[in-house]
Formats: sequence, C-alpha cells, structure tokens
Amino acid sequence: MKKEKLETIELDHGGGGQKSSELISAIRNIISDKGKWKNQMDDGATLKVGNQYLVFTTDAYIVDPIFFPGGDIGKISVCGTINDLAMMGAIPQGLSLSMVIEEGFSVKDLLKISQSIQKASREAGVPIVTGDTKVLPKGKIDKIEITTAGVGLAKKIISNSGAEIGDVIITSGDLGEHTVALLSSRFNYKTKIISDSKTLNKEMQLIAKFVHSAKDPTRGGLAANIIEIAEKSKVKIVLKEELLPYKKETLAIAGLLGIDVLSFASEGRFIAAVSEKDAKKVLQILRKFNLEAKIIGKVEKGRGVFLKTVLGSLRPIEMPRGKLVPRIC
Amino acid sequence: MKKEKLETIELDHGGGGQKSSELISAIRNIISDKGKWKNQMDDGATLKVGNQYLVFTTDAYIVDPIFFPGGDIGKISVCGTINDLAMMGAIPQGLSLSMVIEEGFSVKDLLKISQSIQKASREAGVPIVTGDTKVLPKGKIDKIEITTAGVGLAKKIISNSGAEIGDVIITSGDLGEHTVALLSSRFNYKTKIISDSKTLNKEMQLIAKFVHSAKDPTRGGLAANIIEIAEKSKVKIVLKEELLPYKKETLAIAGLLGIDVLSFASEGRFIAAVSEKDAKKVLQILRKFNLEAKIIGKVEKGRGVFLKTVLGSLRPIEMPRGKLVPRIC
Repeated sequence: MKKEKLETIELDHGGGGQKSSELISAIRNIISDKGKWKNQMDDGATLKVGNQYLVFTTDAYIVDPIFFPGGDIGKISVCGTINDLAMMGAIPQGLSLSMVIEEGFSVKDLLKISQSIQKASREAGVPIVTGDTKVLPKGKIDKIEITTAGVGLAKKIISNSGAEIGDVIITSGDLGEHTVALLSSRFNYKTKIISDSKTLNKEMQLIAKFVHSAKDPTRGGLAANIIEIAEKSKVKIVLKEELLPYKKETLAIAGLLGIDVLSFASEGRFIAAVSEKDAKKVLQILRKFNLEAKIIGKVEKGRGVFLKTVLGSLRPIEMPRGKLVPRIC
Repeated sequence: MKKEKLETIELDHGGGGQKSSELISAIRNIISDKGKWKNQMDDGATLKVGNQYLVFTTDAYIVDPIFFPGGDIGKISVCGTINDLAMMGAIPQGLSLSMVIEEGFSVKDLLKISQSIQKASREAGVPIVTGDTKVLPKGKIDKIEITTAGVGLAKKIISNSGAEIGDVIITSGDLGEHTVALLSSRFNYKTKIISDSKTLNKEMQLIAKFVHSAKDPTRGGLAANIIEIAEKSKVKIVLKEELLPYKKETLAIAGLLGIDVLSFASEGRFIAAVSEKDAKKVLQILRKFNLEAKIIGKVEKGRGVFLKTVLGSLRPIEMPRGKLVPRIC
C-alpha cells in the first residue's frame, strides 16, 4: 500500500492540505529557479522593474458544478488571481485567461461563463488582456478548465512572512461560504448561503499601507492559510473560538458532513495581520465596502496556531489533511 | 445540422484554423477590455511600464502522446510561451506554470516532465517563478494539462502588423517537424524526424533590431501564421515553392496522410520579415546558432499570401480549415 502511494498521483495531492504541500514541494524543487525573482513561496513571485515591483501569479480552476449559487467557474477564475495579486500589495494590471473546453460543451454556457468573466473583470477594473482556447475530444476533460495568470505592480510587497508580534488578525468577513455553496449544489442541500466569491483589490489598495501580511483563505481554508502566515512569520497566532468568522449555517453543514469548518474555502475574503493601533482604521475602511470585517485573534511570541476556546483552553489548529478537504476550485 | 453546430463546441474550434478564429473572436469580444494594454491580437499583450514595455502571454498544452521524439509536454509548454514573448521583441523574464493532473498519473512521469521543464527553462535562462497544481479524479482529465504564462520586457515591440513592402521572409529552419514527430508516435510510423521544439529567445534577442514582424508557426503552421502577418500588415506575401522549408520526410508524411504540409506545426522555429538589406546579416547570426535559416519569400504591395510555383504561376495559400489540422499542442 505504502509503495503504491509513491508511484501514482492521488486526489489528496491536489487538496491544499498536507499531501498537497509535499507534492508541490517536490515539483517546485525541480522546476523553480530563483533568478532575479523573489517571494516565490508566497501567492506570487516578484521582480524589481525600475522603481517598483512586478508581481506575477497563476491558478488553475476546475470546479464541480461549474455554475453554483453566487457564481461560476468564470467568476472565480478572475477573483482568485486578482486576489492573489492584491494580497501581496500589488495593484493588478491585467490577467491572462486560457480555457480548455470539452467537445460538445454548450456554446450558451460558454457565453454565460464569458459574460461572468467580463463582469468580474470590469467590476475590479482589471482587464483580461491575453488568452488561449483549446478544445479536447469528448471525455478528455470534464466540461471546462480555466487557468488565469495575473500581473500587478507594487511599490511595496506584502509578504506571508510579515506578521509581527503584537499584531491583530482581522478577517474581511465570514469565511467558508464558497465551500458551502458548492457542496450545497453538489449534494442538493437547501441553503440561503451563496459563494463569497468577490474581487478584493479595491479594498486592499486602501488598507495596504497598514497590512503586515495577508492571504485569501481559498484551498485549505482558514486553517491552512493562517498556519502558513504563522510558520513563515515565525510567530504564534491565537484565534478566539467565540470570534471565529462562520455563519451558523456554515457550521451546521460542516457538522453534518463531518468536515472541519476551518478547512472551508472562501473566494472573496481575506485574513490580514495589522498593528493593533491601526486595526480600528482598517476595520472602518473595510466596513465602508459593506464588509463585515472583524478582529479574530492576535499574534504572539512563539510558534504554532491555537484556538482559545470559550472555556479558556488552547487547542492547536492543524493543517487539513487528505480527502476530508473538499476540492472547491 | 447547421443549427446543432451553433449550440455546442466542436473539436475544430480548437484547431488553429478558420473555425478556431471565429470562436476565439466571439469570446474575445466578450471578455477583452483594452484598458491601458496594447497589441492584444498579437501573441501577447503589452503595457508601458516606466521607459519599457511589459509583454504578457499565455498558452494551454495538452498533447497526445505526452512523450514524443524530441520532447514532451513539459518542454513544449516552456518553449511555446518563451517563444511567444521572443517573437514580440521581448526578453522573457519569467514563466508561471500550472499543472492539472489526472489521479493515478505516474509520479515517475511527472518527475520526468518536471525535469524536462527545468532543462528547457535553464537553457533559455528564463526561470519558472510561480505555479499551481491541481489533481482531478480519474477520467476527468486526459493524463496532464499544463498552462504557462510568461512576462517579458521590451524596449521596442515587434508586431504582427510590422511587415513592410520590400522585406524578405526568412525562416529559422525547416518547419513542421513537431507535427511529424507527434503523428509518427501517434500512428507508430517510423521516422528519423524529431520534434523541432526549442526556445528561441537568445537568437531573437540578437536579431530583434532588424526584425519588422515575427511569428513562431505553431498551431495552423506556416499557412495560418504567414496569413496573419500579411493580413495585419496589409501587404501581399509571395513564397517560392522551391524554397519552402520542409524536409522530404515531412512532405512524405503529409502526402501519406493527405494533410496540407503548410498546416504542420513547429514548436521551435520562427518566420520573420526583415529588410532585404539586413537579410544577410540576420542569416549569418542565425547560422551561428546552427540554425538552417533561409529566405523563403518576399513582401509586396497588395493583399493575400501566394505560392509562386516552380512553373511560375501564383497559387493562393488559404487558412487551414477544420479537422484536417491535427492538434499538436
């Protein structure tokens, strides 16, 4: 059994949890050369160009179903890449978008997806500037796959390793609702919750100067992403259980399926570390965008990520593992 | 029949011929916003940054078989994107690379592909700086798909619309050998010809100042690509039949399969329009790279692309259409 696992790729390798990290590390070790680029282990890579930084990132999207409450594959392929640039403090300049389409795919659905791409791109003010389209024989791809890459420009890079002792952790709103929307349409479960997919570049541009570290908790959810910030920043992060940013219905569906809600993904939310003294200002700015931003924890000296329960005990938060992490993008 | 064709995507839509252009135009009309970017209908888009241009391009690669004589899917995914940047006069700075892998895919093959990516990237001096990896359930993708995007910097953009009356058309070497290699492994046909896949950025960097227009004839081959230059430059291009850059074996396999050799693709060759007075210098530089570069035609006043036969008659070259264009990348 053990041997077989090493010989072929498993689904878990793509889930965003522990296994995913191992596979990605193995491949990255082979193909990544640093060159003049920096921050290659963050959401994007950066290159000094003149007196600013070019930021470059990519993501592949295959989602089931392709249309879901609150969005579709087109919308998230735009939001995801714009948000990765924004999390690094960059102003997104343009996206590339490549589609791989299954023969027999509905032209009506393709146009609907294209319109959704256009809408998200226009709302964010970030154009799709170059692309590619491939068509594969029936059965060689599941409906449609979209890969976007994005370029942004930044005066100053916000890094995953930037959280400082004394910072507070804020979220831009409740988390995990993208996973709830996808699971509810996959399992035909009734809920009012819709995908939280949304571009965040305008918000981030206004608060960037206060932000020490930021991530959009997509694959792997809050757990994987807050752990990444803590590890790279070499700090301890303590989240308060009573402040965890999940709606009752999100918690209910997680409980029903027996999946850790901390692994539920968002496609239009961020978590950020900011100085305690700036937190109020940042929350005020975010609330002007109608975001239900709030403080959920703080950064301390030490290592690891912990949940402080309502009873006062500290429970370690661990990296989501294996099939329990539903693939949502 | 006609109606059905409008309702679903067909394989021809991805072939690089006439149908492909129609589908791409329809989607582009919806999703492309110009913004501050230019040249969006060339191989990439350009943005002025300081005193230079940022060039941005993308391509998706699914190839059958994934390993073929002279290369594999990893190699062409690097060559294709680097060459698109180089054709526009840019010095490639870095690539993004996203992989979508089928569950059960051999880890050994994945490592082999990764090593091939590394080799092509190092030879070109262009690092892979950011990426993504997704794993899909068995049957949801055919083995592996790779999408690369690339960013380059240029002082001056070489455009598809730049060919001038009086220019000569040169090729960097014989064409179509990527298609021959793929078809020979697909049909188990014996040939000594291997894929021509190769990065061309170092060569282009040295001749860029002489080049008015350049393209790497991938999908759609010489026919589609020379037609694109002629149409965008609003000129007539006449190629000489006795100078057509194909090996005997390439012509033989095209004849055997009844496919127009002019649609056979290369993944490491270019065609370029240069002033007649600079042609000798350009050919000398290219020959130092062991490339069998030569002049194959000239740019005249008028419209269209023609083949001047050995008997002296002019035969129009037309855009490859439909299923006769084998998908090779």
